[in-house]
Amino acid sequence: MSDTSAIKVTPMPLLGTMLPEAEAAGSTVENHLSEAVAAWRAIVGQAGVQTDASALRASTCQTFANAPSPSAIVRPENAEQVRDCVSVAFRYGIPLHPVSTGLNWGYGSASPPQDGSVVLHLSRLGRILGYDPKLGTVDLEPGVTQGQLAKFLHEQGGRHWIDATGASPDASVIGTTLERGFGHTPFADHWLHICNLHVVMADGTCIQTGFGAMPGARAAACHRWGAGPDLDGLFAQSGLGVVTRLTMWLMPAPECTEAFFFTCANDDDLAQVIEALRPLRINGTLRSAMHIANPWKALAAAAPGFGCRGLDQAQLLEESRRMGMGAWNGSGCLYGSAGQVADSRRQLRHALAGKVGRLSFVGESRLRWAQRLAWPLGRLMRMDVERIMELIVPVYRLMRGQPGYEHQRSTWWGKPGEPPAVVDPDANRCGLLWWSPVVPLDGDQVALAARTAAEILTAHSFLPQVVVNLPYPRSALVLATITYDRDRPGEDSRAEACLSALRDRFDSLGYHPYRYGIQGLAHWRRSLDPAYARILDRIADAVDPCGILGQKLGRGPRVALRHLPT
Amino acid sequence: MSDTSAIKVTPMPLLGTMLPEAEAAGSTVENHLSEAVAAWRAIVGQAGVQTDASALRASTCQTFANAPSPSAIVRPENAEQVRDCVSVAFRYGIPLHPVSTGLNWGYGSASPPQDGSVVLHLSRLGRILGYDPKLGTVDLEPGVTQGQLAKFLHEQGGRHWIDATGASPDASVIGTTLERGFGHTPFADHWLHICNLHVVMADGTCIQTGFGAMPGARAAACHRWGAGPDLDGLFAQSGLGVVTRLTMWLMPAPECTEAFFFTCANDDDLAQVIEALRPLRINGTLRSAMHIANPWKALAAAAPGFGCRGLDQAQLLEESRRMGMGAWNGSGCLYGSAGQVADSRRQLRHALAGKVGRLSFVGESRLRWAQRLAWPLGRLMRMDVERIMELIVPVYRLMRGQPGYEHQRSTWWGKPGEPPAVVDPDANRCGLLWWSPVVPLDGDQVALAARTAAEILTAHSFLPQVVVNLPYPRSALVLATITYDRDRPGEDSRAEACLSALRDRFDSLGYHPYRYGIQGLAHWRRSLDPAYARILDRIADAVDPCGILGQKLGRGPRVALRHLPT
Repeated sequence: MSDTSAIKVTPMPLLGTMLPEAEAAGSTVENHLSEAVAAWRAIVGQAGVQTDASALRASTCQTFANAPSPSAIVRPENAEQVRDCVSVAFRYGIPLHPVSTGLNWGYGSASPPQDGSVVLHLSRLGRILGYDPKLGTVDLEPGVTQGQLAKFLHEQGGRHWIDATGASPDASVIGTTLERGFGHTPFADHWLHICNLHVVMADGTCIQTGFGAMPGARAAACHRWGAGPDLDGLFAQSGLGVVTRLTMWLMPAPECTEAFFFTCANDDDLAQVIEALRPLRINGTLRSAMHIANPWKALAAAAPGFGCRGLDQAQLLEESRRMGMGAWNGSGCLYGSAGQVADSRRQLRHALAGKVGRLSFVGESRLRWAQRLAWPLGRLMRMDVERIMELIVPVYRLMRGQPGYEHQRSTWWGKPGEPPAVVDPDANRCGLLWWSPVVPLDGDQVALAARTAAEILTAHSFLPQVVVNLPYPRSALVLATITYDRDRPGEDSRAEACLSALRDRFDSLGYHPYRYGIQGLAHWRRSLDPAYARILDRIADAVDPCGILGQKLGRGPRVALRHLPT
Repeated sequence: MSDTSAIKVTPMPLLGTMLPEAEAAGSTVENHLSEAVAAWRAIVGQAGVQTDASALRASTCQTFANAPSPSAIVRPENAEQVRDCVSVAFRYGIPLHPVSTGLNWGYGSASPPQDGSVVLHLSRLGRILGYDPKLGTVDLEPGVTQGQLAKFLHEQGGRHWIDATGASPDASVIGTTLERGFGHTPFADHWLHICNLHVVMADGTCIQTGFGAMPGARAAACHRWGAGPDLDGLFAQSGLGVVTRLTMWLMPAPECTEAFFFTCANDDDLAQVIEALRPLRINGTLRSAMHIANPWKALAAAAPGFGCRGLDQAQLLEESRRMGMGAWNGSGCLYGSAGQVADSRRQLRHALAGKVGRLSFVGESRLRWAQRLAWPLGRLMRMDVERIMELIVPVYRLMRGQPGYEHQRSTWWGKPGEPPAVVDPDANRCGLLWWSPVVPLDGDQVALAARTAAEILTAHSFLPQVVVNLPYPRSALVLATITYDRDRPGEDSRAEACLSALRDRFDSLGYHPYRYGIQGLAHWRRSLDPAYARILDRIADAVDPCGILGQKLGRGPRVALRHLPT
């Protein structure tokens, strides 16, 4: 006989063994929300659990219609409370939807993907832990916002920058990262720059990934992979575990940064610009994520109040020209030593020669001069230089890891009057939906995707806002934005129809989004190869046997929800 | 009532439903190797299944003792055959150990981690599929070797390079990648440069990861993540699925490369060199993986035949000095435009000034001159310049993506006489074991790890070969190599004792290896946090309910193995 004595047989956990209380009560088909609420209150305090209908509405208002409503919102304040709250949900079979700060605008904000589930709101876990200035890493909780982290690093001497996104400064760093959000610097792909996830699993088991899975390991925060398989990927865009902490790798403040801006005269120029940029992107000369916006997208950013003036496309185009905008408006940034930046500048100039109308490089001092001289310059050039500076300065700051409230102003487009200083798209009832397909970094394909998106938006009478983002070396994100006024009757459903048309058309082209909003998850499930979906379900069943997490995967609880007693 | 009609309840698959034949036969506790062998032969032909004891021994000889023996080796030649072979194993409950080309020297070669299991040998899946010269990607099968791919790319015009490792040119690219192997260029971390895995799961289900999970997706080969969770990580260092194909991202051939070599006079200089290199590594100035070898490691590479001459450490050190070696011998390479390389050279010079004894930059033409003048130069400098060139030229080629057979010569150390032109460590009975702990990129910690490794090797009377590898931005791999002659009685167990001492000591220091050999997997399991191991087991049970894959996770079949009838 072969020696099989060393072979370990691991029994498969059975569902029944995991639901002790429900089983003990002789009931596996019902759960007990009111009992769970009492148990959660015992953990997080009375104020930490919201069940009042109007409070729930206020906490989960939305930038689009038909978002599901939660039964409750639970707000733990540390990882232990998260574990205990998840254990309660597990015991009672109640589906949880974890959110970090809930500012997932246009994709679902703080709303759960399924009606009646409970939002596990992590904004109170707001500590920055363990900054290592030598290795450039920082440990974060999910409530840490990008504004908070940027400020913290500045106070620590500014040796490291975050990769800021155009989201609110109050948006969670971890939340963006788990959704695979991206920013502007060489660290744009956040998911590539994290490790050491601390995760509360559905049954309350707490794990740490990578080398963090080996107690006492000293490389957990600075090495991406541990030994053996890597579980990190399971927790991206899934909610399959509640991430209560992770290590983020930071960008060292470079000796030199120089932003660049270019414009193209014609819509057709996009393809050749992509072809010109690709080699520099792949070979690492251009390490920042570039953003190339059409005039509509640029206009919505520069002049969000114009959306309600009733101007037609030709008039709006004229306005965009007065602000110096072209058919495409690119921005990016060079980082490195003075020598590296100078060499990259030379290469970029060479690559774009004859392909763009204007290519400007803007460093710190040049920017200050331009700000000072905006008014006379504008008179001279017959352009609205002040407004141009209003647009450029925040983008420049983003490229240097400084988030700002200015960027969310563009969501005001379509609303009456000028936007307030800080727009809150949820509370202000700004209509906002994104469609963000991934396209190979090939000129013709990117141009096709951009043209298609603009056509569909136009056909549905929305401003055809499109921006081509290059946060990855070999693919582009062609982001279409639908903005409107939720207070105007019929607009919600018009927006929904437009999003649906985008989905169908891009599906047929073979370009799928890097990220789905809560309203698109069912569509994502249907788009998966059934065999793949089956494997995904088996894994999800294994780590979440009661189906209380992973609503993003189209999963639901195995037991019916009771109403909260009113 | 809340609307719960949209909530999908996915039933958990039960083990019984997955073993139809065994169940039908009324037997779930036995399996049937001979029947499986017949079934495999029907799929892959008579010659595709080896069961003869001597053939099995020849195919799975080893660089260390006590490696488990397989019951059979099955060699499918395409993905469909892999699927069918796995399905047979699943049906009969027979554990499979997939290997690509099986040249996993020092970690287990082609041997399975557990006695009696069947090796699924994938070397016949040797096709290069779908090279995209525009995006720099190539689709590979697991039998594709690094030599084959390098040659293919050269024939296609040399626009792209592979990241070659010091392993044999006959080693599988996918095999190395799945073990998270690393090479020398900016693409050193192979696992970061792949996507679109085609995987046969334990029950024969075939899936594709990333956007490949969405039929018709056009960005599957050029975008790292799909939408939803990312399953790729599950298949690294696990064998939990059989990868039959993946897309690898290639390095574009740079305008300019310049290798650099440096030496340190004193053993203690290592810490300050690491401190000097770290900022350049983290900020992306040094994008290549550097390798810093102690004189013993360098000597074993340069003069593998010296190992049997009975020289003591002092004499060997003298030999290493005569070859121009220092206490530490660093190598790396600068890649980019001429301007970028010049700037990096300047920064590197500045960073290492006063910290290293000699720092030389070597481009293509300089190398040719040195080769021509090796003999007179040697006379002039009283150094063995010819041997130095023999050492440097293959390393230079590796840095340019060209694998070579020279590197495996170092495994000859300890064997009698001079090595043959091509050393086959398995067949030549070279003793070889690696220990490769990951250490934060901090001078003191790296120096401590290197010193500790050398001390333990010396204490066990092995040549204290240590090389510090920097394939990652924030961590170092401190690689200790044990080489010896397997034909000398007692050496196998002496080597095992040394490896065990390394393990224990590094465990207590908190430095764990990036990769375990088949003989270390049980130790890895024991080092895991039990909660983490439980989650891992649950996932493994879900995708591999009969335990036929994933031996690397310490998993075994649920049923006893029958002997093959003799």
